[in-house]
Amino acid sequence: MLQSVAKDRDLPAEMAAIGAAARAAATVLANTPRTAKDRALAAAAEAIRDQRDAILAANTRDVAAAEAKGATGAFLDRLALDAGRIAAMAKGLDEIAALDDPVGAVLAEWSRPNGLAISRLRVPLGVIGVIYESRPNVTADAGALCLKAGNAAILRGGSESFHSALAIAACLSRGLAAAGLPEGAIQVVPTRDRAAVGEMLAMTGVIDVIIPRGGRSLIERVNAESRIPVFSHLDGLCHTYVHAGARLEMAREIVFNAKMRRTGICGATETLLIDAAVAEAFLPAILEPLVAAGCALRGDDRARAIDPRIGRADESDWGTEYLDAVLAVRVVDDLDAAIKHIDRYGSHHTDAIVTDDADAAQAFAARVDSGIVMHNASTQFADGAEFGMGAEIGISTGKLHARGPVGVEQLTSYKYVVRGDGQVRP
Amino acid sequence: MLQSVAKDRDLPAEMAAIGAAARAAATVLANTPRTAKDRALAAAAEAIRDQRDAILAANTRDVAAAEAKGATGAFLDRLALDAGRIAAMAKGLDEIAALDDPVGAVLAEWSRPNGLAISRLRVPLGVIGVIYESRPNVTADAGALCLKAGNAAILRGGSESFHSALAIAACLSRGLAAAGLPEGAIQVVPTRDRAAVGEMLAMTGVIDVIIPRGGRSLIERVNAESRIPVFSHLDGLCHTYVHAGARLEMAREIVFNAKMRRTGICGATETLLIDAAVAEAFLPAILEPLVAAGCALRGDDRARAIDPRIGRADESDWGTEYLDAVLAVRVVDDLDAAIKHIDRYGSHHTDAIVTDDADAAQAFAARVDSGIVMHNASTQFADGAEFGMGAEIGISTGKLHARGPVGVEQLTSYKYVVRGDGQVRP
Repeated sequence: MLQSVAKDRDLPAEMAAIGAAARAAATVLANTPRTAKDRALAAAAEAIRDQRDAILAANTRDVAAAEAKGATGAFLDRLALDAGRIAAMAKGLDEIAALDDPVGAVLAEWSRPNGLAISRLRVPLGVIGVIYESRPNVTADAGALCLKAGNAAILRGGSESFHSALAIAACLSRGLAAAGLPEGAIQVVPTRDRAAVGEMLAMTGVIDVIIPRGGRSLIERVNAESRIPVFSHLDGLCHTYVHAGARLEMAREIVFNAKMRRTGICGATETLLIDAAVAEAFLPAILEPLVAAGCALRGDDRARAIDPRIGRADESDWGTEYLDAVLAVRVVDDLDAAIKHIDRYGSHHTDAIVTDDADAAQAFAARVDSGIVMHNASTQFADGAEFGMGAEIGISTGKLHARGPVGVEQLTSYKYVVRGDGQVRP
Repeated sequence: MLQSVAKDRDLPAEMAAIGAAARAAATVLANTPRTAKDRALAAAAEAIRDQRDAILAANTRDVAAAEAKGATGAFLDRLALDAGRIAAMAKGLDEIAALDDPVGAVLAEWSRPNGLAISRLRVPLGVIGVIYESRPNVTADAGALCLKAGNAAILRGGSESFHSALAIAACLSRGLAAAGLPEGAIQVVPTRDRAAVGEMLAMTGVIDVIIPRGGRSLIERVNAESRIPVFSHLDGLCHTYVHAGARLEMAREIVFNAKMRRTGICGATETLLIDAAVAEAFLPAILEPLVAAGCALRGDDRARAIDPRIGRADESDWGTEYLDAVLAVRVVDDLDAAIKHIDRYGSHHTDAIVTDDADAAQAFAARVDSGIVMHNASTQFADGAEFGMGAEIGISTGKLHARGPVGVEQLTSYKYVVRGDGQVRP
């Protein structure tokens, strides 16, 4: 019976209703003052604290089902909530409320000789669709960021986090209601049916931008299926390049942190490049703490000739985002070779050079075509909060609209307002 | 024989070679100082002046062929060059050379408590594909704007302007050579074969952004076929709304200019909305000069009841970009009704309100979801040069990346450069 009920659902009609509610809400939100948006966020945070037990119960269901299906430890770790994570989620909403309101900000204003006064004002994008992995906190983060930027959000989390997402969405709805904002402002797709993703991708003219978060297969599906503009959050295939001008101690600390602090985040370094001139002197010492921490090493022949603890890398290693305690290691001739490697195998996310040579650092920063280029710092700093930009919805690896951390400002557009007193064009 | 030669062309290989040359050029251009780019533009302008007769001869061939095929007068007017237009084209290049270099500009910089110094720098987009109508000057304008912003350009003009485009492209090549810049920086697709457009649209990973200029059918084809991000320049279905608080004299002048100054540009007003409260008093006087200038009028029943010179509009009139001396006229109840009409039928390009009521103007500016909103000014000011932004490649009606006039700044992206002295993330 349940199955037949599920089959009877009219998914396209349901999604159309969600889309219509989102568009109507977006029109309201575009002219909602920050006080109301912030009140909604604070009330949602409060609701999450109040509803902690209900959220945990929903999450327990999700985790049990995922375990029964044989999910990996890393997957379960992303899925599972506890009291601390729920408190952090609520705190995250309060922090987003505290951010400056991007909407209405005057980005520029000037006058023309004919007396026209022109201003460029920040405005919301409209309706944002977010498709993400089974990480319950993203429901709160993404919904809150979209709301703060004056956008309506249609959220679709991984099906394994379904009950958790609904429980969190209920708290967001309470927040919206407390501030008198339309329910359609933040909606979670209320079905685990994977066809809902296809429906979302087809909502051209309803959804203004799609933000896919998750593996490469999701991004590829979105790019292949959808006509809606996309902020791509591609792999973080990040490199740390130890230049001949590096100091060994700094290089060792940065490489260790860039790889091992958290191996599962997109800003984790996956490949170490090291100049041939210092490889023999530096490589064993740089790798020592990695080996001690259990990191597997895969390198080219030149690296392996220097340090036998390095296993053999094949071509695919240079293009693999391990997201694990595995490091690819390659000896390069010089800066040019390092940049060429990064250009060929990187994902334009975050790449770092370690050197005391200012010219080399400058050339690296200018020529590496990545959203974030680091000098003498760990790639793990690639994070909106670390940049001081507040919470982010992801790191964009595309060049259009948003590059690097996508925070509230990147979730907006702008318009021109031109004021005259009767000007006509000659 | 000629046909068999044409069939033997290996178009995919040719386009792949163009793409490879463009990518290589983009890498060079990204780090080319403004002096070299400006020298190339000045030398190209000089070459256009030198080669005036050759360009005219090529254009004469194009015009003759178009005439033989029965092209309309408006089409031939866009296609035809004369000495004055060629001089204007060369001057346009000099003006683009004189613009500030957007590349390398520091958009923001700040430091973090941990000592990391973060800067956001403007960088080129990469390779830009421009597909445009048979307007020879666009070859020069678009190529120059892309170059100024540090991008390589692949240009595909309407096939009727083929010989003109090649003659102009030869001048651009001379400019590039004079400055020692790669030939691949500005390339015109050297075939009239319409399949070349399909090839361009498939060059994902080679072309970073496509800018389609032209009719709705081109935009729709690009959106349907291409996976490459697009700056859409959709129709300019612009409205001028005469609010109850307008002064008649100002309204009459603005409406006349907005419609009739040049009817064929995207900023021309296509629909006049007028408040019922003033329609009877104002409408005949506003329409008087339009009728005298030969403008056809199509209105709803309320407008026709006031002024019998107005013909009957049907539903399709509200959604038609006439680009001609035709004006749709509708009486609306109030500001809300005007905004609702614009939201339903407009193209989010440029819409104007005429009123002395500051609150109404403010509400119109806030609620009309268009790239450009005008108050007491003609919609014909919707133009990058009129905004003081210099030359533009078009007016974007999308909300992502670029909205409104697309000039050199809108043809760029940004990157973050983070400088540390050994920071690792706790």
